[in-house]
Amino acid sequence: MNIQLNQIPQRTLKPRTDGLTMMMDKGMSIRDAESILETSSNYIDIIKLGWGTSVVYPKLKEKIALYKSAGIPVYFGGTLFEAFVIRDQYKDYKKMLDTYQIEYAEVSDGSIELHHEEKCNFISDLSQQATVLSEVGSKDAEKIIPPYKWIELMKAELEAGAWKVIGEARENGNVGLYRASGEVRTGLVEEILTQIPSEKIIWEAPQKAQQVWLIKLMGANVNLGNIAPQEVIPLETIRLGLRGDTFDHFLSSTGNTLI
Amino acid sequence: MNIQLNQIPQRTLKPRTDGLTMMMDKGMSIRDAESILETSSNYIDIIKLGWGTSVVYPKLKEKIALYKSAGIPVYFGGTLFEAFVIRDQYKDYKKMLDTYQIEYAEVSDGSIELHHEEKCNFISDLSQQATVLSEVGSKDAEKIIPPYKWIELMKAELEAGAWKVIGEARENGNVGLYRASGEVRTGLVEEILTQIPSEKIIWEAPQKAQQVWLIKLMGANVNLGNIAPQEVIPLETIRLGLRGDTFDHFLSSTGNTLI
Amino acid sequence: MNIQLNQIPQRTLKPRTDGLTMMMDKGMSIRDAESILETSSNYIDIIKLGWGTSVVYPKLKEKIALYKSAGIPVYFGGTLFEAFVIRDQYKDYKKMLDTYQIEYAEVSDGSIELHHEEKCNFISDLSQQATVLSEVGSKDAEKIIPPYKWIELMKAELEAGAWKVIGEARENGNVGLYRASGEVRTGLVEEILTQIPSEKIIWEAPQKAQQVWLIKLMGANVNLGNIAPQEVIPLETIRLGLRGDTFDHFLSSTGNTLI
Repeated sequence: MNIQLNQIPQRTLKPRTDGLTMMMDKGMSIRDAESILETSSNYIDIIKLGWGTSVVYPKLKEKIALYKSAGIPVYFGGTLFEAFVIRDQYKDYKKMLDTYQIEYAEVSDGSIELHHEEKCNFISDLSQQATVLSEVGSKDAEKIIPPYKWIELMKAELEAGAWKVIGEARENGNVGLYRASGEVRTGLVEEILTQIPSEKIIWEAPQKAQQVWLIKLMGANVNLGNIAPQEVIPLETIRLGLRGDTFDHFLSSTGNTLI
Repeated sequence: MNIQLNQIPQRTLKPRTDGLTMMMDKGMSIRDAESILETSSNYIDIIKLGWGTSVVYPKLKEKIALYKSAGIPVYFGGTLFEAFVIRDQYKDYKKMLDTYQIEYAEVSDGSIELHHEEKCNFISDLSQQATVLSEVGSKDAEKIIPPYKWIELMKAELEAGAWKVIGEARENGNVGLYRASGEVRTGLVEEILTQIPSEKIIWEAPQKAQQVWLIKLMGANVNLGNIAPQEVIPLETIRLGLRGDTFDHFLSSTGNTLI
Repeated sequence: MNIQLNQIPQRTLKPRTDGLTMMMDKGMSIRDAESILETSSNYIDIIKLGWGTSVVYPKLKEKIALYKSAGIPVYFGGTLFEAFVIRDQYKDYKKMLDTYQIEYAEVSDGSIELHHEEKCNFISDLSQQATVLSEVGSKDAEKIIPPYKWIELMKAELEAGAWKVIGEARENGNVGLYRASGEVRTGLVEEILTQIPSEKIIWEAPQKAQQVWLIKLMGANVNLGNIAPQEVIPLETIRLGLRGDTFDHFLSSTGNTLI
């Protein structure tokens, strides 16, 4: 750090298994990606190429190579997986992972109906080839999954071979873990945590208030996802109690490791 | 495309007369403009230099030259036209188009009162010199124009020589075609379409939900405007059914040409 | 200006003491900072490195040097000052200003409780070393300070040595001067102006509607702060009546100097 302050929460270091920040890239230029790596590569643990943007992005190989050269894993958003599955092109999907030398993959059912057994089969099959992130939660705001069901799904997907499970929020943070207003479904999160270890979950949390709530609940080293590129540094300050929102949280609470 | 998926709606190709994306530049740097061209030049058909930003932008000639060298037409936002008209400087406006070698021009009355005959005279006169886009709808949220009147205005402006008519939304998408909440005035759009061919209209649609609604109604190749630079690629995925919002729209509906 | 329009409000010129735009940098890359200087250096009078972002930003010296080389003063957000104070590291804070050759400093109590006498002592002490901006208003939406109290605090802080006082809004513009909805607390602003000269105040105003309201009340040359980099040029057009929001304000109102 540039500046020596006492009593700052201790962050995990790269390569992190906990305290991950997953950044969402929705089609930024190579140059902008370079800029983000310049400022934030220490704070980004994994990058998602959002939904189907990879299909239309003109310099995909170059982008993937850039992120990999910075030592940051890249994966295609789950919607792309689903776009292949619904077209009966799952084999093509696997070939594509090879073509682009992608070593992480997301399995989701946010936009398609998938028997859960079938979803777990995909997880299991893909985990032979890649490190799998599986996502729970629908992109459809109408489909409310009760907490016990979230837990059941997450457990089964981890058992099927998922490295981490992701709690759905979309780019805007208004479905899945959140109400349409963006407010956290707090009871849901708390109930999930009674059964699933926090380090196995990446919580999509694009909105600042969502990040703050999750950090206050689980500490500086909670795994957070769908972070916009320009919000990676602001998020890091929230994790460290250097923004108004968590300013006195770490100072006043016990149970945090401060340095 | 990088990735071969079946059953993707067929997009028109450049130079497009339908399926246009009009990007709004509100003063981005030359370097950022270069980046956008790198990622999105195939998906941008025309660029608006928003409202009066051209007056204060320090490298205007360079910016215009850059966009033109990419084969993308550029025009000044209608508010700049109005700023000249209200100061009785219409002649200066026309000179300025020459100075900057601008071949497209917007005629609007979003901030000024203009007899419609006078507006049509401007359209007619300017169309001798430039390809004219004329805009219908007030920037004032209080001024609600009834559907039959929108149709009347649009018809007259096309007859006066406008190449396309633009439905007003502002940068934020909260007036004109939309309610203050951003919600589409659906009855208005549907009634307009009974009388004016969809390819003659560019719908300003800065918000994602607005883009989604218009694409679901009119298909992948609807003309959309006021798209922020970083939203051009996301929009392209919505047009192609590669984002959750339109994921199954093209698969399930008939009447779309899929490739 | 690129384009000659009559009846444009006269802006103060750099170095400005009134009509300031304070830009908020929340961790942008060196390259993006260069781009902003390219387009907007004439319109940016002072730059805040937001809250504690400086602690985690990896190229802090380079960033500060870049802004200084453009002749634009830089200062650390008040939350960083507070982070040092609450840890009893005020001496380290002063050393850090020296290390980074920072000549402007913010004194605030948005996240900590500080006796006002103590706050004024900090202002007085720091003003030996730096040009001090002091901030009034809590980051806590629950803490409503009545107008007479704002005036009292502002007066005392200016007397203690503050160069300007800042009215708090946060990055989002939803506390302090504003309601949670972002709406201006108009009575508060008007009452403050009966007692404190407008040129002594920088109004944080990240939202467009807030900028518009303040410009309509105080004219083109009101001091505005917490402006996002990409909003500096749009703000300049609002100041000049070149955007719909203030389009006819300067034309119709008397008391504005037009050129």
